[in-house]
Amino acid sequence: MASRGHCLELDAADPLAHLKCEFALPQGVIYLDGNSLGARPRAALARAQEVIGHEWGQDLICSWNKAGWFDMPKRLGDRLAPLIGARPGEVVVTDTTSLNLFKALAGALRMQAEGPGGHRRVIVTERSNFPTDIYIAQGLSEWMDRGYTLRLVDSVDELPAAVDEQCAVLMLTHVNYRTGYQHDMAALTRHAHDNGALAVWDLAHSAGALPVDLHGAQADFAVGCTYKYLNGGPGSPAFIWVPQRHQARFTQPVTGWWGHAAPFAMSPGFEPVEGIGRAMCGTQPVVSLAMVECGLDVFEKTDMQSVRAKSLALTDLFIELVESRCTGHPLQLVTPRDHARRGSQVSFTHPHGYAVMQALIARGVIGDYREPHIMRFGFTPLYTSFADVWDAVEILKDILDRRDYDINAARSAVT
Amino acid sequence: MASRGHCLELDAADPLAHLKCEFALPQGVIYLDGNSLGARPRAALARAQEVIGHEWGQDLICSWNKAGWFDMPKRLGDRLAPLIGARPGEVVVTDTTSLNLFKALAGALRMQAEGPGGHRRVIVTERSNFPTDIYIAQGLSEWMDRGYTLRLVDSVDELPAAVDEQCAVLMLTHVNYRTGYQHDMAALTRHAHDNGALAVWDLAHSAGALPVDLHGAQADFAVGCTYKYLNGGPGSPAFIWVPQRHQARFTQPVTGWWGHAAPFAMSPGFEPVEGIGRAMCGTQPVVSLAMVECGLDVFEKTDMQSVRAKSLALTDLFIELVESRCTGHPLQLVTPRDHARRGSQVSFTHPHGYAVMQALIARGVIGDYREPHIMRFGFTPLYTSFADVWDAVEILKDILDRRDYDINAARSAVT
Repeated sequence: MASRGHCLELDAADPLAHLKCEFALPQGVIYLDGNSLGARPRAALARAQEVIGHEWGQDLICSWNKAGWFDMPKRLGDRLAPLIGARPGEVVVTDTTSLNLFKALAGALRMQAEGPGGHRRVIVTERSNFPTDIYIAQGLSEWMDRGYTLRLVDSVDELPAAVDEQCAVLMLTHVNYRTGYQHDMAALTRHAHDNGALAVWDLAHSAGALPVDLHGAQADFAVGCTYKYLNGGPGSPAFIWVPQRHQARFTQPVTGWWGHAAPFAMSPGFEPVEGIGRAMCGTQPVVSLAMVECGLDVFEKTDMQSVRAKSLALTDLFIELVESRCTGHPLQLVTPRDHARRGSQVSFTHPHGYAVMQALIARGVIGDYREPHIMRFGFTPLYTSFADVWDAVEILKDILDRRDYDINAARSAVT
Repeated sequence: MASRGHCLELDAADPLAHLKCEFALPQGVIYLDGNSLGARPRAALARAQEVIGHEWGQDLICSWNKAGWFDMPKRLGDRLAPLIGARPGEVVVTDTTSLNLFKALAGALRMQAEGPGGHRRVIVTERSNFPTDIYIAQGLSEWMDRGYTLRLVDSVDELPAAVDEQCAVLMLTHVNYRTGYQHDMAALTRHAHDNGALAVWDLAHSAGALPVDLHGAQADFAVGCTYKYLNGGPGSPAFIWVPQRHQARFTQPVTGWWGHAAPFAMSPGFEPVEGIGRAMCGTQPVVSLAMVECGLDVFEKTDMQSVRAKSLALTDLFIELVESRCTGHPLQLVTPRDHARRGSQVSFTHPHGYAVMQALIARGVIGDYREPHIMRFGFTPLYTSFADVWDAVEILKDILDRRDYDINAARSAVT
């Protein structure tokens, strides 16, 4: 039977426990929202001072070369690559996840259009995919030169049949933002390929959360986020992966100078640079970009297998404790119990989920809320302890037992 | 006759002189490259500490609401608006100049396609426009649903005739990055309208450099940069302006969740928000974005008329001194002498322009070089003094007189 003492024992034996001190976490807070905005690496403040004070303030324009600002998108991409099963020269950190998806999806559709799949005009995804992914596909479908249709599938079971002879691209988010459901990337990619489609993956809730093996799965394109599990800072630039085997044929519509073969030749004709650089467009936000490195530094002190082992232990414990200690309350688990299908978050529905989450936040347990009725708890093994899980559940139990939440709580924008 | 003493007198009488102390400039450097990367406002370091240390580190996810991160693109846009003759609710600071041009140009083309200009299929611009603007138009033309052609004009004189009955959009950069030539925005916009075209303006070298009156010129769309004359920091997010009269009809292809009417309703259909918000796409780099405010704060302590008066005095003085003190050297002014046609930079060609610029930089006079043969000097009235101009010319004279430059200097990437 679990107890706080048992959780403290688990912490004492946790090989990742020492990494918590790499992060600046506020006193009295149990932060279970790293799936929305990762915590701040301690090193980020000094790095910002260096970039702003010295590189910008002292070296000014010279820092583009001298401080390596130009190379940062590729250098950070190379450092991120091992976390997602990518190789050097295949990833750049740039722009936003939405924009990178626009490029990846456009590139995939163009590859189909120019090959034997030229007749295919359908993009398949889930209705429950993160909305911006759907919106980006809608915008691209509407504006692109050949006219595409978006096919929204209502359940995972319906996905295979939806990938038919009309399907050009299967576009999925690996781990669902709301439920924490993890797709079988290898199987679905194989199914897409077997049926003549390409597979584009959004790793927003995967990168840094669990081991991803893009090459092992033979995925075609991927994008993802650095401000969640990678702890890159608020709104830090996203990433895009194009495997070496697709790079020569990869083109995309936002052809800015950063994707040009010779950006400073200032020639009036666009010619894409060889390699992953062609996924770039304009000048990147250097200060925000530099913070990404501080997040990646922490991952060098461990490996994704260790992170995953602890993530599953944390989420198993959270599920077990909620179900054993909050009995009699209308909580429903929506995250899969099956490890292979679970990301690094746990979601429960409650009829007053929004109000309960507000009460939790007021008590220092920071998760978040997603329509409809879903309380979402993210577990980030680099800085979440087993005792944190115990304490969070005890506070949840107390709030529920005492009905200490305001069902008329005003809604504010949430992330 | 000019002398250093006279320049010091000009500085003593300069109503903007006190603003220099708002910036952290390195000792022994005369910085004439603010047209590429603006200097660092002193306040930026403390602001970064607040954003990273407190807002991210302490308040974490709550800062999206509590610290106003969500509203920052619009709030900064409203603060920037008066500098370019825009109104509140018409500007957002977001993404990159290249991406914003993609959106503005796409929006303009779609407006034409849906109106009486539906047959128009040509985008007109200058061959000498900043390359990324041309590349973006090329990418958009190639990928968009209706097929557009880009018409590159070789001289300003040829522009009017190029705006013919096939022309959908006249797309120009207000001040040329290489020559410093300033277009007559009002006249060219009127000419575009008289001929059924829309006018899209890139203000990269105008915003913060000189007074811009977008409404006075009846411009249709505009984009620009915050890391040059606005001193927002390396790669700080760019801006896009859509006048209120066009907003209801404005749509663009990168339809991410930040442009949605209800981003947190998580509905699977894109519906653009009313107003300028529909020009946004994904989550913005908060730390880099926050720095933009420090740059804008300085502009609140003066007005663009005062900035322009000093800019013209500085550029007049630089031209006069180079021409009077560097006699006998093959320097050729390419920037217009006519005030109405001049931006806030001065460019001279020299057969060994690259080598001379490297020698200047080695002596602490930081300008930059642009192909072919162009030495570019930016004058930023907020932190450039008349004595700086004198000293820069004396060093240039010394380098030229003594031929103290290496014509075999290795080239490195320059911005």
